Amino acid sequence: MDISEYLPVWSRLTEKEQDVLRKNASLHRVSAGEAIGGGAGKCTGLFVVTEGQIRAYLISESGKEFTLFRLLNRDLCLFSASCMMNSFQSDIMVKAERDSSFWLIPAEVYRTLMEESVVISNFTNEILANRMSEIIWLMEQHMWTSFDCRLAAFLLEESALEASDRLSVTHEEIAGHLGTAREVVTRMLKHFRSEGYVALSRGFVEIKDRKGLQAAYL
Amino acid sequence: MDISEYLPVWSRLTEKEQDVLRKNASLHRVSAGEAIGGGAGKCTGLFVVTEGQIRAYLISESGKEFTLFRLLNRDLCLFSASCMMNSFQSDIMVKAERDSSFWLIPAEVYRTLMEESVVISNFTNEILANRMSEIIWLMEQHMWTSFDCRLAAFLLEESALEASDRLSVTHEEIAGHLGTAREVVTRMLKHFRSEGYVALSRGFVEIKDRKGLQAAYL
Repeated sequence: MDISEYLPVWSRLTEKEQDVLRKNASLHRVSAGEAIGGGAGKCTGLFVVTEGQIRAYLISESGKEFTLFRLLNRDLCLFSASCMMNSFQSDIMVKAERDSSFWLIPAEVYRTLMEESVVISNFTNEILANRMSEIIWLMEQHMWTSFDCRLAAFLLEESALEASDRLSVTHEEIAGHLGTAREVVTRMLKHFRSEGYVALSRGFVEIKDRKGLQAAYL
Repeated sequence: MDISEYLPVWSRLTEKEQDVLRKNASLHRVSAGEAIGGGAGKCTGLFVVTEGQIRAYLISESGKEFTLFRLLNRDLCLFSASCMMNSFQSDIMVKAERDSSFWLIPAEVYRTLMEESVVISNFTNEILANRMSEIIWLMEQHMWTSFDCRLAAFLLEESALEASDRLSVTHEEIAGHLGTAREVVTRMLKHFRSEGYVALSRGFVEIKDRKGLQAAYL
């Protein structure tokens, strides 16, 4: 496993740039639940996921959470290196949802490469533009899509990620992903149960009627 | 008035790049209410405002609006050139709020410069990162700040932009800025009136007690 396989622009870099990356990138392992970076004052670097599942999210002053996106194999996270960009001021939290591994490129190394290489700089642009569209899409969902539809979409997505109908997730955690209160999640899940779409048990939500859920809410 | 004054990285460009920009940038005027670009399938180019006030906003399928940001003198808008970035998929609308002028750099010209110049590419990164922080901030406001506070902040901001206590704005327009329904705006404005913070008349909201409004909601 080599860093070269994880950067799509690798072949367009100069030998010197490749060398700098090989020398400075390091492979890290984190356990599920471990924070990786993000938040005020932290600046770990840029990382590329090689295994596992990592979550980037916002957290309010009162502790409410909202999931911005999940990083899976080969996904690249810039936010843990937001200090690289003077203009980026948000505090985005990053935490492993499962045991994960990633290549880490220290922020100052990436910044120097970005300032010198038009390939890396444009690659960074593409990543930023991509994340920005995702965030705008999420914002539109949050503003204009009713909560029942957002919850149904979340359960179906989660089921795809876990490759299972039985989701190990609490109402509190769902609330944190969707940026709402636990009570709101519980009420809607009970409604879904009354319609026969899901079964509920402590710490689990089980999808019982996938087609029905899709037909009603997507 | 020259394009060189409006691009902060001008002095770091090569003579050839400066030449390309001078030859291809053109000065445009639009009237208040005129659409500039944005939306599916349109790709005008990148522009820099030289005068006036331009609004970038989202619009839902059912026609609801939500203001992302305002562009004033020297502000630069990338979204009207979103086709320059393969990864950017959102439809952002851009419209003049007052009679405005701007320098327009055609999308393909900017794209070529960005692919060749590390200065322009990094400059673009900074703009993107900056917009992204603003959008995330806005999203946090939308999720975690109650509507009364958001409305109070909007009125005070609008008053600063218009340099007046008397704002020429309908409840419908406010709803469009804040991504909510007109009824919600009307109800809260009536509450503000009952507290003596504002006076309401057809097409106008007048701030009567600025300090009170700030103290209560900011």
